[in-house]
Amino acid sequence: MSLIGKKVEAFSAQAFQKGEFIDVSSENFQGQWSVVCFYPADFTFVCPTELEDLQNQYAALKELGVEVYSVSTDTHFTHKAWHDSSEAIGKIEYIMIGDPSHNISTIFDVLDEQSGLANRGTFIIDPDGIVQTVEINADGIGRDASTLVNKIKAAQYVRNNPGEVCPAKWQEGAATLKPSLELVGKI
Amino acid sequence: MSLIGKKVEAFSAQAFQKGEFIDVSSENFQGQWSVVCFYPADFTFVCPTELEDLQNQYAALKELGVEVYSVSTDTHFTHKAWHDSSEAIGKIEYIMIGDPSHNISTIFDVLDEQSGLANRGTFIIDPDGIVQTVEINADGIGRDASTLVNKIKAAQYVRNNPGEVCPAKWQEGAATLKPSLELVGKI
Amino acid sequence: MSLIGKKVEAFSAQAFQKGEFIDVSSENFQGQWSVVCFYPADFTFVCPTELEDLQNQYAALKELGVEVYSVSTDTHFTHKAWHDSSEAIGKIEYIMIGDPSHNISTIFDVLDEQSGLANRGTFIIDPDGIVQTVEINADGIGRDASTLVNKIKAAQYVRNNPGEVCPAKWQEGAATLKPSLELVGKI
Amino acid sequence: MSLIGKKVEAFSAQAFQKGEFIDVSSENFQGQWSVVCFYPADFTFVCPTELEDLQNQYAALKELGVEVYSVSTDTHFTHKAWHDSSEAIGKIEYIMIGDPSHNISTIFDVLDEQSGLANRGTFIIDPDGIVQTVEINADGIGRDASTLVNKIKAAQYVRNNPGEVCPAKWQEGAATLKPSLELVGKI
Amino acid sequence: MSLIGKKVEAFSAQAFQKGEFIDVSSENFQGQWSVVCFYPADFTFVCPTELEDLQNQYAALKELGVEVYSVSTDTHFTHKAWHDSSEAIGKIEYIMIGDPSHNISTIFDVLDEQSGLANRGTFIIDPDGIVQTVEINADGIGRDASTLVNKIKAAQYVRNNPGEVCPAKWQEGAATLKPSLELVGKI
Amino acid sequence: MSLIGKKVEAFSAQAFQKGEFIDVSSENFQGQWSVVCFYPADFTFVCPTELEDLQNQYAALKELGVEVYSVSTDTHFTHKAWHDSSEAIGKIEYIMIGDPSHNISTIFDVLDEQSGLANRGTFIIDPDGIVQTVEINADGIGRDASTLVNKIKAAQYVRNNPGEVCPAKWQEGAATLKPSLELVGKI
Amino acid sequence: MSLIGKKVEAFSAQAFQKGEFIDVSSENFQGQWSVVCFYPADFTFVCPTELEDLQNQYAALKELGVEVYSVSTDTHFTHKAWHDSSEAIGKIEYIMIGDPSHNISTIFDVLDEQSGLANRGTFIIDPDGIVQTVEINADGIGRDASTLVNKIKAAQYVRNNPGEVCPAKWQEGAATLKPSLELVGKI
Amino acid sequence: MSLIGKKVEAFSAQAFQKGEFIDVSSENFQGQWSVVCFYPADFTFVCPTELEDLQNQYAALKELGVEVYSVSTDTHFTHKAWHDSSEAIGKIEYIMIGDPSHNISTIFDVLDEQSGLANRGTFIIDPDGIVQTVEINADGIGRDASTLVNKIKAAQYVRNNPGEVCPAKWQEGAATLKPSLELVGKI
Amino acid sequence: MSLIGKKVEAFSAQAFQKGEFIDVSSENFQGQWSVVCFYPADFTFVCPTELEDLQNQYAALKELGVEVYSVSTDTHFTHKAWHDSSEAIGKIEYIMIGDPSHNISTIFDVLDEQSGLANRGTFIIDPDGIVQTVEINADGIGRDASTLVNKIKAAQYVRNNPGEVCPAKWQEGAATLKPSLELVGKI
Amino acid sequence: MSLIGKKVEAFSAQAFQKGEFIDVSSENFQGQWSVVCFYPADFTFVCPTELEDLQNQYAALKELGVEVYSVSTDTHFTHKAWHDSSEAIGKIEYIMIGDPSHNISTIFDVLDEQSGLANRGTFIIDPDGIVQTVEINADGIGRDASTLVNKIKAAQYVRNNPGEVCPAKWQEGAATLKPSLELVGKI
Repeated sequence: MSLIGKKVEAFSAQAFQKGEFIDVSSENFQGQWSVVCFYPADFTFVCPTELEDLQNQYAALKELGVEVYSVSTDTHFTHKAWHDSSEAIGKIEYIMIGDPSHNISTIFDVLDEQSGLANRGTFIIDPDGIVQTVEINADGIGRDASTLVNKIKAAQYVRNNPGEVCPAKWQEGAATLKPSLELVGKI
Repeated sequence: MSLIGKKVEAFSAQAFQKGEFIDVSSENFQGQWSVVCFYPADFTFVCPTELEDLQNQYAALKELGVEVYSVSTDTHFTHKAWHDSSEAIGKIEYIMIGDPSHNISTIFDVLDEQSGLANRGTFIIDPDGIVQTVEINADGIGRDASTLVNKIKAAQYVRNNPGEVCPAKWQEGAATLKPSLELVGKI
Repeated sequence: MSLIGKKVEAFSAQAFQKGEFIDVSSENFQGQWSVVCFYPADFTFVCPTELEDLQNQYAALKELGVEVYSVSTDTHFTHKAWHDSSEAIGKIEYIMIGDPSHNISTIFDVLDEQSGLANRGTFIIDPDGIVQTVEINADGIGRDASTLVNKIKAAQYVRNNPGEVCPAKWQEGAATLKPSLELVGKI
Repeated sequence: MSLIGKKVEAFSAQAFQKGEFIDVSSENFQGQWSVVCFYPADFTFVCPTELEDLQNQYAALKELGVEVYSVSTDTHFTHKAWHDSSEAIGKIEYIMIGDPSHNISTIFDVLDEQSGLANRGTFIIDPDGIVQTVEINADGIGRDASTLVNKIKAAQYVRNNPGEVCPAKWQEGAATLKPSLELVGKI
Repeated sequence: MSLIGKKVEAFSAQAFQKGEFIDVSSENFQGQWSVVCFYPADFTFVCPTELEDLQNQYAALKELGVEVYSVSTDTHFTHKAWHDSSEAIGKIEYIMIGDPSHNISTIFDVLDEQSGLANRGTFIIDPDGIVQTVEINADGIGRDASTLVNKIKAAQYVRNNPGEVCPAKWQEGAATLKPSLELVGKI
Repeated sequence: MSLIGKKVEAFSAQAFQKGEFIDVSSENFQGQWSVVCFYPADFTFVCPTELEDLQNQYAALKELGVEVYSVSTDTHFTHKAWHDSSEAIGKIEYIMIGDPSHNISTIFDVLDEQSGLANRGTFIIDPDGIVQTVEINADGIGRDASTLVNKIKAAQYVRNNPGEVCPAKWQEGAATLKPSLELVGKI
Repeated sequence: MSLIGKKVEAFSAQAFQKGEFIDVSSENFQGQWSVVCFYPADFTFVCPTELEDLQNQYAALKELGVEVYSVSTDTHFTHKAWHDSSEAIGKIEYIMIGDPSHNISTIFDVLDEQSGLANRGTFIIDPDGIVQTVEINADGIGRDASTLVNKIKAAQYVRNNPGEVCPAKWQEGAATLKPSLELVGKI
Repeated sequence: MSLIGKKVEAFSAQAFQKGEFIDVSSENFQGQWSVVCFYPADFTFVCPTELEDLQNQYAALKELGVEVYSVSTDTHFTHKAWHDSSEAIGKIEYIMIGDPSHNISTIFDVLDEQSGLANRGTFIIDPDGIVQTVEINADGIGRDASTLVNKIKAAQYVRNNPGEVCPAKWQEGAATLKPSLELVGKI
Repeated sequence: MSLIGKKVEAFSAQAFQKGEFIDVSSENFQGQWSVVCFYPADFTFVCPTELEDLQNQYAALKELGVEVYSVSTDTHFTHKAWHDSSEAIGKIEYIMIGDPSHNISTIFDVLDEQSGLANRGTFIIDPDGIVQTVEINADGIGRDASTLVNKIKAAQYVRNNPGEVCPAKWQEGAATLKPSLELVGKI
Repeated sequence: MSLIGKKVEAFSAQAFQKGEFIDVSSENFQGQWSVVCFYPADFTFVCPTELEDLQNQYAALKELGVEVYSVSTDTHFTHKAWHDSSEAIGKIEYIMIGDPSHNISTIFDVLDEQSGLANRGTFIIDPDGIVQTVEINADGIGRDASTLVNKIKAAQYVRNNPGEVCPAKWQEGAATLKPSLELVGKI
């Protein structure tokens, strides 16, 4: 079975954020919504555009009470160096986790053991540390971070309104569905 | 490691399409692009809106040379019955696979063994039968099938143009990146 | 050894009855007689005639203090949809259990793992939850629910009259046998 | 999974029929229909009435091309002695197999290991040696052999008319069902 | 090592004696001498002459405080039937144990698993439940029960006179040997 | 299962007979009848009387074509010494096997591992090397070799007259039984 | 046992040298002397001084026919970025191997699995791919690359002059020792 | 992973020092710095020059609070004999451990099991018994003990000044590095 | 490793000494010196000359506080018989243990499993039950018991004078060696 | 079972003899008699007196066609050094094997694994490489090599005169025994 509906296993790691090295762990996922975004390697090609795109959504996500984490199997030292030298990456304000031990990539089942690099996986985690959405793309195919905002809103709506579900293409404010016996076979 | 980059294991099953019962198997994934869309159960709530949404993209996907398969652990008999009785489902022209043996849901790692139902997973598979993208949502959060068209286009572009990669938010016709030593650390 | 004389293992499931979704479990078998009738799949061929036939005996069985359960590996959603759309099934008043997890079909040893569907097995269970009779037919051969009434009566008579046994073709009110040393070799 | 649809495993044994001791084996099940009827013990109570009842159907079954076998864990010597001394058993013309090694009772999964006696199981086997129906009753509840004739007729009809199925309560000459896509959800 | 000098393992069974069905168990071997006589099957050939021969010694054995048990893998029902119908067996007054579960025959290591029948073994058991003599003949060779009386007398003498041993061909009242250092190499 | 009906496993050993040391093996059992008589130890108490008693039957047994072997876990050297020094043993003309390796005593299942000595077991073996009778006595109870002659005669009669069996207490020349269907339940 | 005297196991990897990405493998160790220098991570503290120190010996080592490889668990992308941005590292002309899969670090037994980083190990490998010297320092203690030149010279002398050995503190041109029986116990 | 950063496992042994036989154990490594120097065998060729070289550094090492141990798989008796007879070895004042049981050589992973001799390994151990440096040379290549003094000084500096690290080629009194975020990517 | 320096495992057995049968066990080895002398078999060839030779030393050994035990896999009965009939063996006053169970011969690792006889092993055991010397000869080569006296004296001297050792060919009263550092390499 | 009568397992080693280092192996034991003498360690106390004593017998042993080998777990280098420095050892002309790998000591079952030293075992090996005698003394008790000459003579006599055995205390030229049936129990 996929990770959907499962609690993230415990880990701890070092990360870079806003000019500081900080400690992060699976405890960070308790009490607020989280987006965790894996990518293969610093100083490569698709990655910076994706990470920049994610930064562009950071304010909107923060407003929704979401913290954002990027993860690669590079060290936090390399994250800082990349942040220092790349224009795109230099804008990043969210938390960049170093996973040289492969521990977190293994927990999220995105480690390519052959190369030692992570698949491009994006995970939305609810305030109980439970995985709500998984999205993984093969290398070469960029992600679109803007879809995260809508997914988060839907996930938050469902969490806050037990008994309602969001239909396909749901947008904030649109009608939801209240599952009931009468609806069975009627949609 | 996730299914990304792996070939789908062999299976065979019965399906419903356009008023007929047909045999499908993993062989169908050879030679053309495929979208495989799992959902928990026929005659339920979010599912029909997602499946209808997918039907709305079917023509566009077909034009891109993509075949579409929906899968639940219901039988093909139940698929036909749902198709007969539901206005939304009655529009569906793509292939609806029955997986009562749980075989396909297990291969795609989306089976919830407790309930015997599939997670809401969407997979893009290339003409070699290799998984290119994975997207799985918790129950209650609807998918947006329109994002599939863009992903397919990006995946097709990358396949047809070896040595180029699509950046984040890439749209057909937009610039791609040619990975080269000079670009390292320059983006 | 067969299931005869053994207590049914614990399970819980969702079911459809008279326009409602209800929870059932192996606890339901405690304190009253039960008939459990497995069939392969909703919306198929022999099945509805068998289920309708069983409904025709439902009043008689109820009078004997027997509850009736049908089970397939379809969901309770599909049961409702079938109930809504089929004239034969629409008459059914007994409990239709959904077993998409295959759990109950495995407990009663009637799951065909290849297809994920149940064999056509009928079980009479006494108020202690002990299996008293087993009857299983290959697909294509319909059952005759009327034979259940006689079997139940015989089983009830034996339970209520310890020390007596019902001979072949026994009908309610007919003579029974009191096993005794003198009878050995005399019948 | 039950024995339904499985070939009977190989065995050989000694039996009594019409004043002779004969050898029988699983080979006997090849090329004609068979009814195999297990019972606990010679010289006991319900058993002779059931065996007599079965004898009463023997001519009808023979006419349908069916051979009949009774089996207990007694020896063929005891079968002969019972046949010699019991009025009811003395009428029996079918084959009475001795299974003191417990081998056949184990193959048909009806051995009660505690007592060393067989459950009251009745099996219909087709000319390929494949089990078509299973019926097992707890001790104290007699069987009704007359139901065998109808079951055999239905099984033979289905075997001879591939693509048709017999509905519940089917009687020879009554209408059968031809499964077709159009029938799905229409019965 | 053989069973000589070992205590008989626990068992319980049903038996026939003097027109009654009774319960027997390994507890019966405590506190008095026992003879246990296995034979293959009721209603066969050598067996009744052996059992009749044993009956002829029954009074003499009883006088020595010995209880006698015959055992076959037939049921106690069959024992009664044989007793009722056979002149030779009808005379038997000792206990006829039914062992259809093969349990006792296995404990005494006389079960022929191929046939499910017991070897023709005779055992003398002392009042502590310890096996004192074993005698087993191939089928076709009858036993002579009269030798049991002498063996029992020798075994009882040795038990009652610790420190003395009975020489070959010893008869009640004849001289015994008192083992002593002086006798070593002198006989 | 006991050794009855089983072929003696292969062994080789050294023995003493008539002033010579000779080699014997399980091959000696091929082609003629054999009596094998185990006893605990040379230079002890019951043993010499039993061995002398056996010698007294040696001529009669020889006339029946039977060879006789005594076996203890002593060496053939000790057998010779005992033969030289004991009046009773000095008469012995049959073969005295030494089994200090415990090999033969283990094959015949009469080794008491605690003491390293053999139980008092007597075995009759037919010309195919198959065990026909087993008799074992606890220590202290002497055997009576004269019973061997009758048993051998019965075994030989049965071997030479296939289809006949010797009843209990059978003596040479007495009537035997021809098992036939008619006799079942008639004796 | 340590790696001394053992052949390096097979691996392949990507590396950065002089502005190019190149493929390297254990095959590179065949046919010329090699120095392999592990360090924990790019963009850290002791590391660049060590790597610069190694570069300062590169010409001397090259003259001795030695190729030099540095290895960390960073990617070759990160190596390039570090080379681009660090003055010390920018001077490096030898081969910088990326080992994000941990494969090479595991082969040389220098992986700290807890952190996913390599110990500071230096290895001299002869033209047969056999490890000749191992040196590993705890973090915080810098290496002195100049000692490598002398070790290489000694190793090359010993290889080229079989039967001679280099004493402690041996310098090129100094006397060596010819092991001979006369020298035993004389030094 | 190498031994770096690990505590030495427990051992005890006998050793020779200054004309005495003494007991040493892994406890000796607690509370002061230690150098442990393995070599293949007494009375051989490179070994005495290395051991003499180590003696030449002994005073300097002692001044740094370091105890020195040499180890071979020879006995302490042989160490004394070598000390008595060799001019070079006769100067040695440090502790010469005998390891004929191979126990210590196995703990330090330098035992060549084929020959039963130790590789030429040198280990620096801190006052907590933790291995700080490892150096192993193939046979034929002499070590230079003078490098130990510098390594010890660097290791002691790092231990006494937490938060500082010694760069490559560091000499006592030279500048060290204070790792800080600002230094990342700046060296 | 050999038995030297190990405590003899526990056993108990029966033995013959001076016309009596006695119990002996490994407890007998506590508190006095013991000689244990195994030989293959009573009534054979080399054995009696060895046992007589041992008897000739018995007085001298007794004077040294040594008890003597001979052991073969014969019984104590056979030992008595041999003692009675053989002139050489009749002189024996020490303890002759019977080991028909092979237990003691196995503990001392001298059992030839093929023949079931013991090798010709002689063991000296100190008052703590610890084996001090082992001597085993192939069959055909006689032992010389007189060497035992000297070995015992040396072993007793060493036990009584801790810190001294007996040189080769040591005779009572001759000089011993006091191991000391000064002696190393001086003898 | 002890090594008596078994062939020595294969080994190879380096040894010292008469100023040379030579290769020896288990092949050396083929074709001539061998004495193998283990001792704990060079440069110790009892050992040199034993080895000198063995040298004193070397000429006599050579004359009998016997080669002599001493073995300790010291190296052949240490053997040479001891030979050079010790007056007693300097006289030795036989082969001194070095066993630092413990291989030979393990094969002869004399290794004390705790200390890594050999027990004081002496072995006579015949020209087929079969062990004929074993003698092992605890430390502190010297051996007497002169007993070897007599043992060798006896072993050679037995080998050259099949069918004769040497009695206890046999000396060359003395009478031997020809085992024959008549002798059994007569010595």
